[in-house]
Amino acid sequence: MPTIAVDAMGGDQAPREIVRGVARASLETDIDCVLVGDERRIGEELSAVAHDRRQIDVIHSPQFVAMDEAPREGLDAKPNASVAVAARAVADGRADALVSAGNTGALILASARTFPLLPAVRRAALASVFPRKTQYPGQDRLALILDVGATVTAGAEELVQFAVMGSTYAKRISKVSAPRVGLLNMGAERFKGGEVLAQAYERLDRIDELNFVGNVEGNDLAKGRADVIVCEGLLGNVVLKLVEGVAEVALDVASYARGRKLLWRLALSMLGPGLRRLKSLTDYAKYGGAPLLGFDRLVLKAHGRSSARAVENAVKVAANAVRDRVPQEIAAGLAGAP
Amino acid sequence: MPTIAVDAMGGDQAPREIVRGVARASLETDIDCVLVGDERRIGEELSAVAHDRRQIDVIHSPQFVAMDEAPREGLDAKPNASVAVAARAVADGRADALVSAGNTGALILASARTFPLLPAVRRAALASVFPRKTQYPGQDRLALILDVGATVTAGAEELVQFAVMGSTYAKRISKVSAPRVGLLNMGAERFKGGEVLAQAYERLDRIDELNFVGNVEGNDLAKGRADVIVCEGLLGNVVLKLVEGVAEVALDVASYARGRKLLWRLALSMLGPGLRRLKSLTDYAKYGGAPLLGFDRLVLKAHGRSSARAVENAVKVAANAVRDRVPQEIAAGLAGAP
Repeated sequence: MPTIAVDAMGGDQAPREIVRGVARASLETDIDCVLVGDERRIGEELSAVAHDRRQIDVIHSPQFVAMDEAPREGLDAKPNASVAVAARAVADGRADALVSAGNTGALILASARTFPLLPAVRRAALASVFPRKTQYPGQDRLALILDVGATVTAGAEELVQFAVMGSTYAKRISKVSAPRVGLLNMGAERFKGGEVLAQAYERLDRIDELNFVGNVEGNDLAKGRADVIVCEGLLGNVVLKLVEGVAEVALDVASYARGRKLLWRLALSMLGPGLRRLKSLTDYAKYGGAPLLGFDRLVLKAHGRSSARAVENAVKVAANAVRDRVPQEIAAGLAGAP
Repeated sequence: MPTIAVDAMGGDQAPREIVRGVARASLETDIDCVLVGDERRIGEELSAVAHDRRQIDVIHSPQFVAMDEAPREGLDAKPNASVAVAARAVADGRADALVSAGNTGALILASARTFPLLPAVRRAALASVFPRKTQYPGQDRLALILDVGATVTAGAEELVQFAVMGSTYAKRISKVSAPRVGLLNMGAERFKGGEVLAQAYERLDRIDELNFVGNVEGNDLAKGRADVIVCEGLLGNVVLKLVEGVAEVALDVASYARGRKLLWRLALSMLGPGLRRLKSLTDYAKYGGAPLLGFDRLVLKAHGRSSARAVENAVKVAANAVRDRVPQEIAAGLAGAP
């Protein structure tokens, strides 16, 4: 079984929810975890919940990068921050993958400083899931969008690599044999969106191993047209946060209604499928995390708001990705791309 | 009173809803309109509704660019397409502004071929409104986002110009004395988003005449932090269409519930403010249209799905913008920017 290094100090509710998530994983799976962070606080949290001590190791790290800290400054000032120590544990072979719900920029930077990029990979990409309608049986109810912030601006070559990396990850994790790949753009025609996107379109269209479905527009994102959405980091980041903002509005609706419990089911049933679709936007926290792709090790960013359940799921997803040899598959996929 | 040239053949429900909108404007305002399109069909539609013939002129144009036609090919093949003839009527001084609910690309291209850019303007920008929360009394419930597709990629200089143009338009149309201007980005810090955005931030921050509030992120868009959102066309287009896609989901909810009329109000009142906020997303069709800024004449793009009421509003907004001398104000604003 793979061993997962978990940044115990990263996350809005760290270390409590992180430790609890790892505790759950120790009882419900065969996955080994290494919790990296303040030993005393980790011990306190562990002693409060049921867990299997044989599957949990602890590495002490006295510092951490806070959620709102500037990533570079934070890591430079605290070379033994939990996220950096956890990354080194993976690089040293003490664990097989890295999971953190902490500061995203610090996770990306610590990874870039610790793990080599895979052969041929030019830039890493952070791939996030987002919920949308499905169009065919067996389609994953979550799509993948990358990059969402690791690589701010991308050329055609980077976008093609993001497509291959995302498609490989979706194949392994969503168990879709040929994930549909779409290029996020401002029109359907192949010449749209400027030179970089037009070039990326041409190149993606020529890769036989990719199920490239062409350009997808903003209003396609909520539909099921593509399973993997490719874009540069600036665009992906804005889109993802906008979707999250909408999800928060849907949560408002849900929590308001829940406060009036007796009427809640009645109201929901009256409003029908549309609202349920909106509500499903809010469910995705339970789906583990966003993989940081392109490094020789698997890195998974869990949502900052992760609950114990979300952390447990992130650990499971990371373990699956290690078992399915996702980094090696990505390297093989890129070696085959023209 | 200003005279507005209206492309009678552009729009999903053209010419019927366009002609009816102009007919309503002729009864309810002092605005003169010139309807450009198939004379016979315009006459038929006019004869079916009440209107004031003294305020409506017709210019015959035998051709039009269809909604899904490639703009360049369409305009090249049909030099007397209604949108081109209407633009020339404005350039010749027969009308003061141009309104079209037709093919957006054709409207932008016809404008670029007919109207000179204002002095100092490098690129035109299409500015669309979108609904969001308000944070202070008197704040417009619609924000402006530009560019949404006229200029695919933009440098720092273009972004600064978009900010000045958008701020000027919002001042005049929303009657906000100092509209808050935000730069759409992937983080709050001034160095975020790559070199172009970091440069744009520095320059915007130095313009005293602008109420620049810094970077806004995807999740800020639904809040009231900024009244004018600045970004390049690719980003703005994806964001706008994503918001429209969400609005369609909200419309699904509304129409499903409306089919069950008796329960509709009850259900809505149960679900409270969250859903009403979602529903307000769908109301913005009535708010006229998206100005194409940067040319020496005022051009307004109404939504393709515009009803007669939306067309009437677009005509009113265009007339206000002419009276408020928006192009001249933009030129003055740009002359003052460093």
